[in-house]
Amino acid sequence: MQGHTLVAIVTLLAVLTYFWTSFLVARARAKYGIAVPATTGHADFERVFRVQANTLEWMPIFLPGLWLFAFYWNDRVAAALGVVWILGRILYATGYSKAAQSRSMGFLVQSLAAAVLVLGALGRAIWVAIQTGGV
Amino acid sequence: MQGHTLVAIVTLLAVLTYFWTSFLVARARAKYGIAVPATTGHADFERVFRVQANTLEWMPIFLPGLWLFAFYWNDRVAAALGVVWILGRILYATGYSKAAQSRSMGFLVQSLAAAVLVLGALGRAIWVAIQTGGV
Amino acid sequence: MQGHTLVAIVTLLAVLTYFWTSFLVARARAKYGIAVPATTGHADFERVFRVQANTLEWMPIFLPGLWLFAFYWNDRVAAALGVVWILGRILYATGYSKAAQSRSMGFLVQSLAAAVLVLGALGRAIWVAIQTGGV
Repeated sequence: MQGHTLVAIVTLLAVLTYFWTSFLVARARAKYGIAVPATTGHADFERVFRVQANTLEWMPIFLPGLWLFAFYWNDRVAAALGVVWILGRILYATGYSKAAQSRSMGFLVQSLAAAVLVLGALGRAIWVAIQTGGV
Repeated sequence: MQGHTLVAIVTLLAVLTYFWTSFLVARARAKYGIAVPATTGHADFERVFRVQANTLEWMPIFLPGLWLFAFYWNDRVAAALGVVWILGRILYATGYSKAAQSRSMGFLVQSLAAAVLVLGALGRAIWVAIQTGGV
Repeated sequence: MQGHTLVAIVTLLAVLTYFWTSFLVARARAKYGIAVPATTGHADFERVFRVQANTLEWMPIFLPGLWLFAFYWNDRVAAALGVVWILGRILYATGYSKAAQSRSMGFLVQSLAAAVLVLGALGRAIWVAIQTGGV
Protein backbone atom coordinates (compact mmCIF):
# COMPACT_ATOMS: atom_id res chain seq x y z
CA MET A 1 0.00 0.00 0.00
CA GLN A 2 2.74 2.46 -0.97
CA GLY A 3 1.34 5.95 -0.90
CA HIS A 4 -1.77 4.95 1.06
CA THR A 5 -0.43 4.76 4.60
CA LEU A 6 -2.59 7.61 5.90
CA VAL A 7 -5.78 6.06 4.51
CA ALA A 8 -4.75 2.70 5.99
CA ILE A 9 -4.32 4.31 9.42
CA VAL A 10 -7.68 6.11 9.14
CA THR A 11 -9.34 2.82 8.09
CA LEU A 12 -8.04 1.08 11.21
CA LEU A 13 -9.00 4.03 13.45
CA ALA A 14 -12.52 3.90 11.94
CA VAL A 15 -12.62 0.15 12.69
CA LEU A 16 -11.62 0.86 16.31
CA THR A 17 -14.26 3.62 16.58
CA TYR A 18 -16.86 1.16 15.30
CA PHE A 19 -15.60 -1.49 17.76
CA TRP A 20 -16.01 1.06 20.55
CA THR A 21 -19.75 1.35 19.68
CA SER A 22 -20.01 -2.46 20.13
CA PHE A 23 -18.36 -2.07 23.50
CA LEU A 24 -20.98 0.57 24.44
CA VAL A 25 -23.70 -2.00 23.64
CA ALA A 26 -22.07 -4.61 25.88
CA ARG A 27 -21.87 -2.04 28.69
CA ALA A 28 -25.51 -0.97 28.13
CA ARG A 29 -26.60 -4.64 28.26
CA ALA A 30 -25.12 -4.87 31.75
CA LYS A 31 -26.46 -1.47 32.87
CA TYR A 32 -30.07 -2.02 31.73
CA GLY A 33 -30.16 -5.79 32.32
CA ILE A 34 -30.81 -6.75 28.69
CA ALA A 35 -29.41 -10.29 28.30
CA VAL A 36 -28.48 -11.71 24.90
CA PRO A 37 -30.02 -12.51 22.45
CA ALA A 38 -32.56 -9.70 23.13
CA THR A 39 -31.98 -6.37 21.38
CA THR A 40 -34.94 -4.52 22.85
CA GLY A 41 -36.45 -3.98 26.32
CA HIS A 42 -35.36 -0.48 27.41
CA ALA A 43 -35.36 2.71 25.29
CA ASP A 44 -31.94 3.78 26.65
CA PHE A 45 -30.45 0.44 25.64
CA GLU A 46 -32.15 0.49 22.24
CA ARG A 47 -30.59 3.84 21.33
CA VAL A 48 -27.11 2.55 22.19
CA PHE A 49 -27.85 -0.59 20.18
CA ARG A 50 -28.93 1.56 17.23
CA VAL A 51 -25.71 3.61 17.47
CA GLN A 52 -23.72 0.44 16.80
CA ALA A 53 -26.17 -0.81 14.14
CA ASN A 54 -26.09 2.53 12.32
CA THR A 55 -22.28 2.69 12.44
CA LEU A 56 -22.19 -0.83 10.98
CA GLU A 57 -24.68 0.26 8.31
CA TRP A 58 -22.35 3.08 7.21
CA MET A 59 -19.13 1.02 7.12
CA PRO A 60 -19.80 -0.35 3.58
CA ILE A 61 -20.53 3.22 2.43
CA PHE A 62 -17.53 4.83 4.13
CA LEU A 63 -14.76 2.28 3.47
CA PRO A 64 -15.25 1.87 -0.32
CA GLY A 65 -15.66 5.65 -0.63
CA LEU A 66 -12.51 6.32 1.42
CA TRP A 67 -10.27 3.97 -0.58
CA LEU A 68 -11.62 4.81 -4.02
CA PHE A 69 -11.36 8.53 -3.26
CA ALA A 70 -7.74 7.93 -2.21
CA PHE A 71 -7.02 6.01 -5.43
CA TYR A 72 -8.74 8.49 -7.76
CA TRP A 73 -7.90 11.75 -5.97
CA ASN A 74 -5.47 11.98 -3.10
CA ASP A 75 -4.44 10.00 -0.04
CA ARG A 76 -4.12 13.00 2.29
CA VAL A 77 -7.50 14.53 1.37
CA ALA A 78 -9.18 11.11 1.71
CA ALA A 79 -7.55 10.60 5.13
CA ALA A 80 -8.66 14.08 6.30
CA LEU A 81 -12.26 13.39 5.21
CA GLY A 82 -11.99 10.03 6.99
CA VAL A 83 -11.01 11.80 10.22
CA VAL A 84 -14.07 14.07 9.83
CA TRP A 85 -16.21 10.95 9.39
CA ILE A 86 -14.79 9.41 12.58
CA LEU A 87 -15.40 12.63 14.54
CA GLY A 88 -18.99 12.76 13.20
CA ARG A 89 -19.45 9.14 14.30
CA ILE A 90 -18.18 9.87 17.84
CA LEU A 91 -20.51 12.89 18.06
CA TYR A 92 -23.41 10.74 16.81
CA ALA A 93 -22.64 7.98 19.34
CA THR A 94 -22.37 10.28 22.34
CA GLY A 95 -25.41 12.34 21.24
CA TYR A 96 -27.75 9.46 20.37
CA SER A 97 -26.82 7.57 23.56
CA LYS A 98 -28.25 10.53 25.51
CA ALA A 99 -31.40 11.28 23.46
CA ALA A 100 -32.83 10.47 20.01
CA GLN A 101 -32.89 14.11 18.93
CA SER A 102 -29.21 14.62 19.85
CA ARG A 103 -28.07 12.38 17.02
CA SER A 104 -28.61 14.86 14.17
CA MET A 105 -25.38 16.91 14.22
CA GLY A 106 -23.05 13.90 14.28
CA PHE A 107 -25.14 12.17 11.64
CA LEU A 108 -24.95 15.22 9.38
CA VAL A 109 -21.16 15.54 9.76
CA GLN A 110 -20.50 11.88 8.93
CA SER A 111 -23.05 11.94 6.07
CA LEU A 112 -21.37 14.90 4.40
CA ALA A 113 -17.88 13.39 4.74
CA ALA A 114 -19.11 10.09 3.30
CA ALA A 115 -20.98 11.85 0.48
CA VAL A 116 -17.85 13.75 -0.62
CA LEU A 117 -15.85 10.49 -0.56
CA VAL A 118 -18.40 8.40 -2.50
CA LEU A 119 -19.55 11.02 -5.01
CA GLY A 120 -16.04 12.42 -5.47
CA ALA A 121 -14.64 8.96 -6.22
CA LEU A 122 -17.57 8.14 -8.52
CA GLY A 123 -17.20 11.36 -10.50
CA ARG A 124 -13.49 10.84 -11.07
CA ALA A 125 -13.84 7.13 -11.87
CA ILE A 126 -16.48 7.90 -14.53
CA TRP A 127 -14.18 10.60 -15.93
CA VAL A 128 -11.26 8.14 -16.07
CA ALA A 129 -13.47 5.50 -17.73
CA ILE A 130 -14.52 7.99 -20.42
CA GLN A 131 -10.93 9.12 -21.01
CA THR A 132 -9.58 5.58 -21.29
CA GLY A 133 -12.53 3.98 -23.06
CA GLY A 134 -13.67 1.96 -20.05
CA VAL A 135 -10.51 0.26 -18.85
CA MET B 1 -6.66 1.19 -9.65
CA GLN B 2 -5.40 1.01 -13.22
CA GLY B 3 -7.48 -1.49 -15.14
CA HIS B 4 -10.24 -1.60 -12.50
CA THR B 5 -12.20 1.55 -13.30
CA LEU B 6 -15.39 -0.30 -14.26
CA VAL B 7 -15.39 -2.33 -11.04
CA ALA B 8 -14.74 0.86 -9.07
CA ILE B 9 -17.76 2.53 -10.71
CA VAL B 10 -19.96 -0.54 -10.06
CA THR B 11 -18.79 -0.59 -6.41
CA LEU B 12 -19.87 3.02 -5.94
CA LEU B 13 -23.19 2.45 -7.75
CA ALA B 14 -23.81 -0.55 -5.44
CA VAL B 15 -23.04 1.69 -2.45
CA LEU B 16 -25.57 4.25 -3.73
CA THR B 17 -28.17 1.50 -4.30
CA TYR B 18 -27.63 0.35 -0.73
CA PHE B 19 -27.87 3.95 0.51
CA TRP B 20 -31.19 4.25 -1.35
CA THR B 21 -32.58 1.32 0.75
CA SER B 22 -31.65 3.32 3.91
CA PHE B 23 -33.52 6.26 2.47
CA LEU B 24 -36.58 4.01 1.95
CA VAL B 25 -36.42 3.12 5.67
CA ALA B 26 -36.34 6.81 6.67
CA ARG B 27 -39.36 7.46 4.42
CA ALA B 28 -41.21 4.41 5.82
CA ARG B 29 -40.50 5.62 9.39
CA ALA B 30 -42.34 8.86 8.54
CA LYS B 31 -45.16 7.13 6.65
CA TYR B 32 -45.94 4.51 9.34
CA GLY B 33 -45.04 6.68 12.35
CA ILE B 34 -42.22 4.44 13.63
CA ALA B 35 -39.91 6.75 15.57
CA VAL B 36 -36.27 5.83 16.22
CA PRO B 37 -34.88 3.74 17.89
CA ALA B 38 -37.77 1.29 17.20
CA THR B 39 -37.35 -1.11 14.27
CA THR B 40 -40.72 -2.83 14.58
CA GLY B 41 -44.37 -1.79 14.95
CA HIS B 42 -45.94 -2.16 11.50
CA ALA B 43 -45.50 -5.07 9.03
CA ASP B 44 -45.19 -2.69 6.05
CA PHE B 45 -42.38 -0.82 7.82
CA GLU B 46 -40.67 -4.02 8.92
CA ARG B 47 -40.41 -5.30 5.35
CA VAL B 48 -38.79 -2.05 4.22
CA PHE B 49 -36.44 -2.25 7.22
CA ARG B 50 -35.53 -5.83 6.27
CA VAL B 51 -34.81 -4.75 2.67
CA GLN B 52 -32.09 -2.45 3.97
CA ALA B 53 -30.84 -5.00 6.54
CA ASN B 54 -30.64 -7.73 3.92
CA THR B 55 -28.82 -5.47 1.46
CA LEU B 56 -26.34 -4.63 4.23
CA GLU B 57 -25.98 -8.35 4.99
CA TRP B 58 -24.97 -9.04 1.38
CA MET B 59 -22.47 -6.18 1.03
CA PRO B 60 -19.59 -8.16 2.63
CA ILE B 61 -20.39 -11.07 0.30
CA PHE B 62 -20.75 -8.97 -2.86
CA LEU B 63 -17.86 -6.52 -2.52
CA PRO B 64 -15.03 -9.02 -1.79
CA GLY B 65 -16.43 -11.31 -4.51
CA LEU B 66 -16.61 -8.46 -7.04
CA TRP B 67 -13.03 -7.24 -6.48
CA LEU B 68 -11.40 -10.65 -6.22
CA PHE B 69 -13.24 -11.83 -9.34
CA ALA B 70 -11.95 -8.70 -11.12
CA PHE B 71 -8.38 -9.40 -9.94
CA TYR B 72 -8.40 -13.12 -10.78
CA TRP B 73 -10.54 -13.06 -13.91
CA ASN B 74 -11.58 -9.90 -15.67
CA ASP B 75 -12.66 -6.35 -14.83
CA ARG B 76 -15.40 -6.15 -17.48
CA VAL B 77 -17.03 -9.48 -16.59
CA ALA B 78 -16.89 -8.61 -12.86
CA ALA B 79 -18.48 -5.21 -13.57
CA ALA B 80 -21.24 -6.82 -15.68
CA LEU B 81 -22.03 -9.32 -12.89
CA GLY B 82 -22.01 -6.39 -10.46
CA VAL B 83 -24.64 -4.61 -12.55
CA VAL B 84 -26.78 -7.79 -12.47
CA TRP B 85 -26.38 -7.84 -8.67
CA ILE B 86 -27.54 -4.19 -8.44
CA LEU B 87 -30.56 -4.88 -10.67
CA GLY B 88 -31.44 -7.93 -8.53
CA ARG B 89 -31.18 -5.74 -5.42
CA ILE B 90 -33.51 -3.08 -6.90
CA LEU B 91 -36.02 -5.80 -7.87
CA TYR B 92 -35.76 -7.27 -4.35
CA ALA B 93 -36.28 -3.86 -2.71
CA THR B 94 -39.31 -2.91 -4.80
CA GLY B 95 -40.82 -6.43 -4.53
CA TYR B 96 -40.27 -6.98 -0.80
CA SER B 97 -41.54 -3.47 0.03
CA LYS B 98 -44.89 -4.50 -1.49
CA ALA B 99 -45.22 -8.05 -0.10
CA ALA B 100 -43.02 -10.71 1.53
CA GLN B 101 -43.58 -13.22 -1.28
CA SER B 102 -42.56 -10.69 -3.96
CA ARG B 103 -38.95 -10.72 -2.78
CA SER B 104 -37.97 -14.07 -4.34
CA MET B 105 -37.08 -13.12 -7.93
CA GLY B 106 -34.81 -10.23 -6.99
CA PHE B 107 -33.22 -12.31 -4.25
CA LEU B 108 -32.51 -15.13 -6.70
CA VAL B 109 -30.95 -12.79 -9.29
CA GLN B 110 -28.60 -11.13 -6.78
CA SER B 111 -27.75 -14.52 -5.16
CA LEU B 112 -26.71 -16.00 -8.49
CA ALA B 113 -24.59 -12.98 -9.44
CA ALA B 114 -22.88 -13.03 -6.02
CA ALA B 115 -22.35 -16.81 -6.19
CA VAL B 116 -20.59 -16.55 -9.55
CA LEU B 117 -18.38 -13.75 -8.22
CA VAL B 118 -17.44 -15.47 -4.94
CA LEU B 119 -17.07 -19.04 -6.23
CA GLY B 120 -15.42 -17.91 -9.47
CA ALA B 121 -12.83 -15.88 -7.57
CA LEU B 122 -12.27 -18.69 -5.05
CA GLY B 123 -11.74 -21.31 -7.77
CA ARG B 124 -9.19 -19.20 -9.62
CA ALA B 125 -7.39 -18.10 -6.42
CA ILE B 126 -7.00 -21.74 -5.34
CA TRP B 127 -5.72 -22.59 -8.84
CA VAL B 128 -3.19 -19.74 -8.68
CA ALA B 129 -2.08 -20.81 -5.18
CA ILE B 130 -1.48 -24.37 -6.41
CA GLN B 131 0.42 -23.16 -9.49
CA THR B 132 2.66 -20.80 -7.52
CA GLY B 133 3.09 -22.91 -4.39
CA GLY B 134 0.92 -20.70 -2.22
CA VAL B 135 2.27 -17.22 -2.82
CA MET C 1 -3.16 -9.50 -6.17
CA GLN C 2 0.31 -10.94 -6.69
CA GLY C 3 1.63 -12.20 -3.41
CA HIS C 4 -1.78 -12.11 -1.70
CA THR C 5 -3.36 -15.31 -2.97
CA LEU C 6 -3.58 -16.92 0.47
CA VAL C 7 -5.31 -13.89 1.98
CA ALA C 8 -7.68 -13.79 -1.02
CA ILE C 9 -8.60 -17.46 -0.42
CA VAL C 10 -9.11 -16.86 3.32
CA THR C 11 -11.29 -13.82 2.54
CA LEU C 12 -13.56 -15.90 0.33
CA LEU C 13 -13.68 -18.76 2.87
CA ALA C 14 -14.65 -16.20 5.54
CA VAL C 15 -17.39 -14.93 3.20
CA LEU C 16 -18.67 -18.50 2.77
CA THR C 17 -18.56 -19.08 6.56
CA TYR C 18 -20.58 -15.91 7.01
CA PHE C 19 -23.01 -17.02 4.29
CA TRP C 20 -23.42 -20.32 6.15
CA THR C 21 -24.66 -18.39 9.22
CA SER C 22 -27.34 -16.80 6.99
CA PHE C 23 -28.31 -20.25 5.85
CA LEU C 24 -28.68 -21.32 9.53
CA VAL C 25 -31.13 -18.41 10.00
CA ALA C 26 -33.22 -19.52 7.01
CA ARG C 27 -33.30 -23.07 8.41
CA ALA C 28 -34.21 -21.79 11.91
CA ARG C 29 -37.04 -19.68 10.42
CA ALA C 30 -38.55 -22.89 9.00
CA LYS C 31 -37.92 -24.93 12.16
CA TYR C 32 -39.41 -22.41 14.62
CA GLY C 33 -42.07 -21.01 12.25
CA ILE C 34 -40.75 -17.43 12.27
CA ALA C 35 -41.90 -15.93 8.95
CA VAL C 36 -40.17 -12.89 7.44
CA PRO C 37 -39.95 -10.00 8.19
CA ALA C 38 -40.01 -10.96 11.91
CA THR C 39 -36.64 -11.41 13.65
CA THR C 40 -37.99 -12.38 17.07
CA GLY C 41 -40.57 -14.81 18.46
CA HIS C 42 -38.59 -17.78 19.81
CA ALA C 43 -35.40 -17.67 21.91
CA ASP C 44 -33.82 -20.55 19.96
CA PHE C 45 -34.42 -18.67 16.70
CA GLU C 46 -33.18 -15.39 18.15
CA ARG C 47 -29.81 -16.88 19.12
CA VAL C 48 -29.31 -18.23 15.59
CA PHE C 49 -30.32 -14.82 14.21
CA ARG C 50 -27.79 -13.14 16.51
CA VAL C 51 -25.05 -15.54 15.33
CA GLN C 52 -25.49 -14.20 11.81
CA ALA C 53 -25.88 -10.58 12.97
CA ASN C 54 -22.73 -10.80 15.09
CA THR C 55 -20.74 -12.38 12.27
CA LEU C 56 -21.90 -9.55 9.99
CA GLU C 57 -20.91 -7.04 12.70
CA TRP C 58 -17.35 -8.41 12.74
CA MET C 59 -16.84 -8.54 8.96
CA PRO C 60 -15.85 -4.84 8.70
CA ILE C 61 -13.39 -5.39 11.58
CA PHE C 62 -11.92 -8.62 10.24
CA LEU C 63 -11.60 -7.89 6.51
CA PRO C 64 -9.77 -4.52 6.74
CA GLY C 65 -7.54 -5.96 9.48
CA LEU C 66 -6.75 -9.07 7.43
CA TRP C 67 -5.77 -7.19 4.27
CA LEU C 68 -3.85 -4.37 5.95
CA PHE C 69 -1.96 -6.90 8.10
CA ALA C 70 -1.09 -8.78 4.90
CA PHE C 71 0.11 -5.56 3.22
CA TYR C 72 2.14 -4.29 6.19
CA TRP C 73 3.42 -7.59 7.56
CA ASN C 74 3.06 -10.89 5.75
CA ASP C 75 0.53 -12.72 3.61
CA ARG C 76 1.06 -16.14 5.21
CA VAL C 77 0.76 -14.91 8.81
CA ALA C 78 -2.35 -12.88 7.91
CA ALA C 79 -3.90 -15.93 6.22
CA ALA C 80 -3.11 -18.14 9.25
CA LEU C 81 -4.73 -15.60 11.61
CA GLY C 82 -7.68 -15.49 9.22
CA VAL C 83 -8.11 -19.26 9.49
CA VAL C 84 -8.10 -18.92 13.30
CA TRP C 85 -10.80 -16.24 12.98
CA ILE C 86 -12.93 -18.55 10.80
CA LEU C 87 -12.53 -21.44 13.26
CA GLY C 88 -13.50 -19.12 16.14
CA ARG C 89 -16.57 -18.06 14.16
CA ILE C 90 -17.63 -21.67 13.54
CA LEU C 91 -17.17 -22.46 17.24
CA TYR C 92 -19.21 -19.35 18.12
CA ALA C 93 -22.00 -20.28 15.69
CA THR C 94 -22.33 -23.87 16.86
CA GLY C 95 -22.02 -22.89 20.56
CA TYR C 96 -24.40 -19.91 20.55
CA SER C 97 -27.00 -21.87 18.51
CA LYS C 98 -27.18 -24.31 21.45
CA ALA C 99 -27.11 -21.90 24.41
CA ALA C 100 -26.23 -18.25 25.11
CA GLN C 101 -23.43 -19.15 27.52
CA SER C 102 -21.76 -21.49 24.99
CA ARG C 103 -20.78 -18.58 22.77
CA SER C 104 -17.84 -17.34 24.87
CA MET C 105 -14.98 -19.57 23.67
CA GLY C 106 -15.58 -19.02 19.96
CA PHE C 107 -16.08 -15.32 20.55
CA LEU C 108 -12.79 -15.08 22.43
CA VAL C 109 -10.86 -16.95 19.70
CA GLN C 110 -12.19 -14.75 16.87
CA SER C 111 -11.73 -11.57 18.98
CA LEU C 112 -8.07 -12.34 19.63
CA ALA C 113 -7.36 -13.16 15.97
CA ALA C 114 -9.09 -9.94 14.85
CA ALA C 115 -7.29 -7.89 17.52
CA VAL C 116 -3.85 -9.11 16.34
CA LEU C 117 -4.79 -8.31 12.73
CA VAL C 118 -6.18 -4.81 13.41
CA LEU C 119 -3.67 -3.67 16.04
CA GLY C 120 -0.74 -5.30 14.24
CA ALA C 121 -1.61 -3.54 10.99
CA LEU C 122 -2.21 -0.23 12.79
CA GLY C 123 1.12 -0.37 14.62
CA ARG C 124 3.10 -1.05 11.45
CA ALA C 125 1.16 1.52 9.38
CA ILE C 126 1.88 4.23 12.00
CA TRP C 127 5.55 3.16 11.99
CA VAL C 128 5.70 3.38 8.19
CA ALA C 129 3.98 6.79 8.24
CA ILE C 130 6.55 8.10 10.72
CA GLN C 131 9.46 6.69 8.71
CA THR C 132 8.24 8.13 5.43
CA GLY C 133 6.82 11.39 6.72
CA GLY C 134 3.20 10.43 6.20
CA VAL C 135 3.09 9.10 2.67
